[in-house]
Amino acid sequence: MKSQPPYYAVIFTSRLSEDTDGYDDMAARMETLASTQSGFLGIESARGPDGLGITVSYWASTEDIARWREDIEHCAAQEQGNRRWYTHYDIRIARVERAYAGPTS
Amino acid sequence: MKSQPPYYAVIFTSRLSEDTDGYDDMAARMETLASTQSGFLGIESARGPDGLGITVSYWASTEDIARWREDIEHCAAQEQGNRRWYTHYDIRIARVERAYAGPTS
Repeated sequence: MKSQPPYYAVIFTSRLSEDTDGYDDMAARMETLASTQSGFLGIESARGPDGLGITVSYWASTEDIARWREDIEHCAAQEQGNRRWYTHYDIRIARVERAYAGPTS
Repeated sequence: MKSQPPYYAVIFTSRLSEDTDGYDDMAARMETLASTQSGFLGIESARGPDGLGITVSYWASTEDIARWREDIEHCAAQEQGNRRWYTHYDIRIARVERAYAGPTS
């Protein structure tokens, strides 16, 4: 992801319930679908052995994030997430002000 | 983490080298040390089976983040990270503007 700040990040942290039927396929589908949306810059995702998942997606503007939130297929996925897959999640919308990469020498 | 926005997030994504000797202990130590710093609000971390790690720490202000970056023990850990542990990392400083939790009914 080579974008220069400012841009926006959606930080999504989650814990899954025991009912994860269909979850992996939907998560992959949503990642693919997000990448086709206006203003999409990138996405990174990790879930550790303790069950905590962190997905950060990057967007050009808050309008792009609002549009993605309202996407009809994404809404259907959110509904299943709320009803079945997640015991808890946090969503944070953040403005990326500085970014740098390493290692540095 | 019950803080109300605005606050700040440091989004740290990383890939480890093959030389991870001492890494887990240092990561745990840095998480403990961070939690004692002025302005620290919380930290969440996940590393998935593909090797991508995401750690997000939350802070009251950019001044708190700058102070933590310059902490002498943290600097020594950063030096080892740059020299040995990471093949790549990205650090993004972001201002959290909105936050909400679920599931929603």
